[in-house]
Amino acid sequence: MKVVIIGGVAGGASCAARLRRLDEAAEIVLVERGPYMSYANCGLPYHTGDVIPKEGDLLVASAELFRTQFNIDARVNCEAVSVDAAAKTVELRDTRSGEVLTETYDRLVLSPGARSLRPPIPGIDLPGIFEMRTVPDARAVRGWIEKGSQFLAGMHKYSGFQTARPKTRAVVVGGGFIGLEMAENLVHRGFDVTVVEMANQILMPMDREMAQIAEAHLERHGVRLALGDGVASFAKAAAGGLEVTTLSGAVHPADIVILSLGVRPDTALAQSAGVEIGERGGIRTDAHMCTSDPDIFAVGDAVEVRDFVTDEWSLVALAGPANRQGRIAADVIAGRNATFRGTQGTSVIGLFGGTAAWTGASEKTLQRRGDTDYRKIYLYPNSHAGYYPGAAPIAMKVLFRASDGRLLGVQALGLDGVDKRISTLAMALQLGATIYDLEEAELCYAPQFGSAKDPVNFAGMVAAGVLGGDMPLRHWDETKSAFLLDVRETPELAVECVDGATHIPVGQLRDRLGELPKDREIMVICRSGQRAYYATRMLRQKGFEASVVSGGMLSRFHHGVLE
Amino acid sequence: MKVVIIGGVAGGASCAARLRRLDEAAEIVLVERGPYMSYANCGLPYHTGDVIPKEGDLLVASAELFRTQFNIDARVNCEAVSVDAAAKTVELRDTRSGEVLTETYDRLVLSPGARSLRPPIPGIDLPGIFEMRTVPDARAVRGWIEKGSQFLAGMHKYSGFQTARPKTRAVVVGGGFIGLEMAENLVHRGFDVTVVEMANQILMPMDREMAQIAEAHLERHGVRLALGDGVASFAKAAAGGLEVTTLSGAVHPADIVILSLGVRPDTALAQSAGVEIGERGGIRTDAHMCTSDPDIFAVGDAVEVRDFVTDEWSLVALAGPANRQGRIAADVIAGRNATFRGTQGTSVIGLFGGTAAWTGASEKTLQRRGDTDYRKIYLYPNSHAGYYPGAAPIAMKVLFRASDGRLLGVQALGLDGVDKRISTLAMALQLGATIYDLEEAELCYAPQFGSAKDPVNFAGMVAAGVLGGDMPLRHWDETKSAFLLDVRETPELAVECVDGATHIPVGQLRDRLGELPKDREIMVICRSGQRAYYATRMLRQKGFEASVVSGGMLSRFHHGVLE
Repeated sequence: MKVVIIGGVAGGASCAARLRRLDEAAEIVLVERGPYMSYANCGLPYHTGDVIPKEGDLLVASAELFRTQFNIDARVNCEAVSVDAAAKTVELRDTRSGEVLTETYDRLVLSPGARSLRPPIPGIDLPGIFEMRTVPDARAVRGWIEKGSQFLAGMHKYSGFQTARPKTRAVVVGGGFIGLEMAENLVHRGFDVTVVEMANQILMPMDREMAQIAEAHLERHGVRLALGDGVASFAKAAAGGLEVTTLSGAVHPADIVILSLGVRPDTALAQSAGVEIGERGGIRTDAHMCTSDPDIFAVGDAVEVRDFVTDEWSLVALAGPANRQGRIAADVIAGRNATFRGTQGTSVIGLFGGTAAWTGASEKTLQRRGDTDYRKIYLYPNSHAGYYPGAAPIAMKVLFRASDGRLLGVQALGLDGVDKRISTLAMALQLGATIYDLEEAELCYAPQFGSAKDPVNFAGMVAAGVLGGDMPLRHWDETKSAFLLDVRETPELAVECVDGATHIPVGQLRDRLGELPKDREIMVICRSGQRAYYATRMLRQKGFEASVVSGGMLSRFHHGVLE
Repeated sequence: MKVVIIGGVAGGASCAARLRRLDEAAEIVLVERGPYMSYANCGLPYHTGDVIPKEGDLLVASAELFRTQFNIDARVNCEAVSVDAAAKTVELRDTRSGEVLTETYDRLVLSPGARSLRPPIPGIDLPGIFEMRTVPDARAVRGWIEKGSQFLAGMHKYSGFQTARPKTRAVVVGGGFIGLEMAENLVHRGFDVTVVEMANQILMPMDREMAQIAEAHLERHGVRLALGDGVASFAKAAAGGLEVTTLSGAVHPADIVILSLGVRPDTALAQSAGVEIGERGGIRTDAHMCTSDPDIFAVGDAVEVRDFVTDEWSLVALAGPANRQGRIAADVIAGRNATFRGTQGTSVIGLFGGTAAWTGASEKTLQRRGDTDYRKIYLYPNSHAGYYPGAAPIAMKVLFRASDGRLLGVQALGLDGVDKRISTLAMALQLGATIYDLEEAELCYAPQFGSAKDPVNFAGMVAAGVLGGDMPLRHWDETKSAFLLDVRETPELAVECVDGATHIPVGQLRDRLGELPKDREIMVICRSGQRAYYATRMLRQKGFEASVVSGGMLSRFHHGVLE
C-alpha cells in the first residue's frame, strides 16, 4: 500500500509516524511545502521574543529523522499542486527547482493546514509587515528587529548618547492567540505595542466580559488596544517606518507590523480532488477522518470538526486535535476502527504572567444557537489556600445545563493555577460530568497547590446551589430596578460602593431585618458572592425574596464596562 | 432542632456553617477542644519554616466569626468528655477552668479528628521533642528554634566568631506528609535533618519504586534518610541536646525532634456513645455519614470511608474528604438526601521544589487484594513542550484494568506540572474513565503549559498500546534471562549501559535484523520507552517476538534499587 501525506507539521507528521508503526510494509511519502518538517509553530512567537533563543530548538523532527527512524520518504520544499482523484495521482512540485512530478497513491492524506487571512488592504505588502506562521517568518522578524537595534545602536554611538535606546513601535493586527503572544514578545524585545482588532474584544472564543479581564491585564503591561477598529491602510511614514491607518481614522506609527488576522482552511488541494467542502469552508470528513472520496483522508486545521458540546460543524486550529486526527487517519488506513470524538476547543494562552483558558461552549455560542437551557455563574476562588504565599484569584465563568446540571463550558483567567483547573474541567466535560460531579471531585490539595475546597469543587457547589434553589442568582444586568443589599463590611465600601444599595454588614443582618422590604426582591451584593449567599440563605428562611448577585463586586467590573 | 458538633476544624466547621445555611432556626453548638476554631493545620509546617511568618494567617475563622456571621454557639477550649446516647446528652469540659456541663442534643456530629500515634518509647516526653498537630505545637517549635538561635548567636558574640552559625541538627520521626514537610521546613531554618522511618520507604501510599524518586530528591537537598529503622529511645546527650537511638543501633544527635508517626482515629467519644467502630479502627458510618445511632453522625479523620477504587473500608486523613463529609452530614440532618461517594485518596506534597502526587489505588494495594486484573506502565513525559524553557520530566506510574482499560490509579513525581496531571486524572478516575478516554482528552496546550500530546494523552496512548497488543510490555524484573536489545544512540551508552544487551541504534535496526534471534523474546530498551516502542512495532511485523521494557533506562533506577 502506498500512502501519500500532504503536510508535514502536526497532523501529517503524526499520521505518518503512526502509520509506520502500524504497517512496516506501507510505502509512505510525506511532503511538506516549507523548508522544515514538523516544526514547533506554537513556539514561533517565543522565538521572536528570544524566550526560545535557538531556532534549531523549534525543529522537532527533521526529514532525515523521518527517513532513518521511520523509513518514510519525507520531502521538504515539496508542494502538492493538484490531485487527480480518478487516476489516484497527486502532482508534486519542488519549490526550489520548480520540477514537477506525479506521484501515485493508494490512500492520500491531506494535512495542508490553514492559510492566513490576507485582505487586500493598501500597503499590506510593504517591507516591515510580517506574518508569523513559519520558521522563515520568525527568522525574518528577528532579522528585522536586530537590524533595527543595530541601526539605533549606531545612531547612539554617533550622537554620543548613552541613554536607553528609544522605544521602537510595533502594531499587531489581530487579537487572537498569535497576535497577543506576539504583542507580549515584542514588549519583551523593547517595543511599544498596539494591538488593532476589528472585533470589540480580544480572544474571540471567550465571552466578552471575560476577555475584558485579559484586556485590562494587557493594558497594565503597557500594551495599547485599539478594539472595534480595523486597518484601512498601511503606508510608509515620512519620518521613516510605517503608518497604520485604521477605519476610525486613527494613525498608529510602527517600526514593525505583525499581521495575525486569523486563518481559513487551505482547501485548494481538496477542491482539485473534488472532495466535499463543508458549510464552514473546511474539508468535510466523517468521524474516521475520511473525505467524500474513500481513498482520501483529511486532518488538522483544514478540516471541519464536530463541536463536542453543540454538535455543530466548526473550525478549530489547534495542535492537539490535529495530532489526534492524524493518528486516527493512520489507524483507519491501517484497517483499524478509530473515530474522532469532536473537539471541545480547549485552549490556553499565557500573557505577561497571566493565563486565560477555556473549554467547551461560550455563552455567546449558546445564545447564537437560541439555547436557553443553561445557567451561568461567576466566581473568583483563590488558586490555593489564601494563607500560603502566592495565592491569586481565578476569575471563572461556568456554564451548565439548567435541566440536568451537565457542564457545558468554562472560561478562566488568573495569575496562578488556571491551566490546571481548565484541564481538570476539560476532562470532566469530556466525560459528561455534571456540576454535582464537580462538587464531589477529589483533587490535589496541599496549601501551596489548592484548597480543601478546590476552585473546581467551589464551582460545583455554587452551581448546585443555583439549580437546587438554595442560591437564586441574579446578574448585574438584572439589578437596575431591584432593592440592592450590600452586606460587605464598612471599610470595603470605601474602595467602591454601589449607588442606591442599602448597606448592612452580614454580621448585623439578623438584628436589622426590619430595614428590609418584604414586597420586593432583594438582590444581595458582597465582594465575590460568598457572604451574599450566606445572607440570602438566611433572608429566604425569614420570608424575604432574596437572591445573590453572581460574583459580587468582582464581576461588576467586567459587566460594568459593557454597559 | 439542636445540633451539637464536636470538633471545630475541617469537617466540623464545614458541617456547622452548611447547617446554618440550610436551617436558620437550628440551634447549633460547635465545640473545639483546642484554643482555635477552624485553623489551617495543613499550614503548620510552613509556619515553623517561616514560609507563613504570621501565626494569625493560620486562623481561618474564629469562634467570634462563627457567632456573629453564622449565629453559631462556638466554643473553644471545650472538650467533649462523654456521650450518653440514650439520654441524648454530651458532657463538655472547659479545658481551662475544668468546669463540666451537660449539653442536650437532637443530633450529634462527631468530628474529633485523629490522634497522633505516640508509642511508649523511652524518653519520648523529653524537652525538645515535639508533635506538629496544632497551632500551639507550631508555636512551641518556633519558640524552641528561636531560643536555640539566640543561644548560638550569644555564643558567637562571646567567642568573637563571626562565621556562619553551626548547623543545628533535627531528627524527624516518620516519613509521611507532615514529617517530610517538617524536614523541608527545618532545612529552610538551617537544620541538618535526618528522617527516621520504620518502613522501607517514605510516603507509604505510593509504591516503593516511585517513592524512591522522592527519596533521591530529598537526599539531593541534604536530608538524610534512615529507612527501615525505628526509634528505640530518646535520651539527653552528654554534650547537650538529644540523642535518638534507633533499633539498628544508630545514634542520631538532635537539637530538636519532630514526632510524626502517623495517626489513628480518635474514637474515645464514639465508644462512650456506643456507636459501631469498624474493622480499621475508625467510626463506622453509612454513606450519609450516619453512625449506628441514627441521631449521631461522624465525619473527618475519625471515620472509616469506602475506597472508591477497591470499595474497601479505609482510613484517610485528608482535608478535602473531611469537608465534603461535613457538608453531607449537614444536608442529611437538614432533611436532604446526600451521600458520600468514598475517597480516591488523592494527595499531593511539595518538597524542595518537587512535587509528588497520586490518586486511586497503588500497585501494592492491588497486590494485597490479590487482584491480578491490572497492568502498569511507567512513563516520563515532559511537563510541557521540550523546546520551551523550564520543561521537566514527570515520572508517572499508571495502573489500569487489564480487562476493560479502566483507570485504577496514578502516581507521579517531578519538578513541574505534576499536580495538574494528577488533578486531571483524579477527575477522570472519579468519572470512571478508561485509558482510551485519556488518549482522547483535550487539555490545555500552549508550549509553556503542556504538549500537543499531553502527559495524560501519552499515558492513554501507551496504555492503549499495551492492551491492544501493539506494545507488549515487560518490566525490569522480567528482563533477567531475556535477549536484551538496546536501541539508543551510541553516545547515550557512555552514560549508562545495560550488561549483556545487544546494541543497535533504532535507525540502523532495519538493516541489521540478521543480528537478532527469531527463537527468543527480544526485550527492547531505550531511554524512556518511546524508541523501544518504535523498534518493537517494526520487529513484530518482521516476525520477531519483541517487547518494550517499560520506562526504559529511566525506570531502571528505581527498580534497580529494589533488587
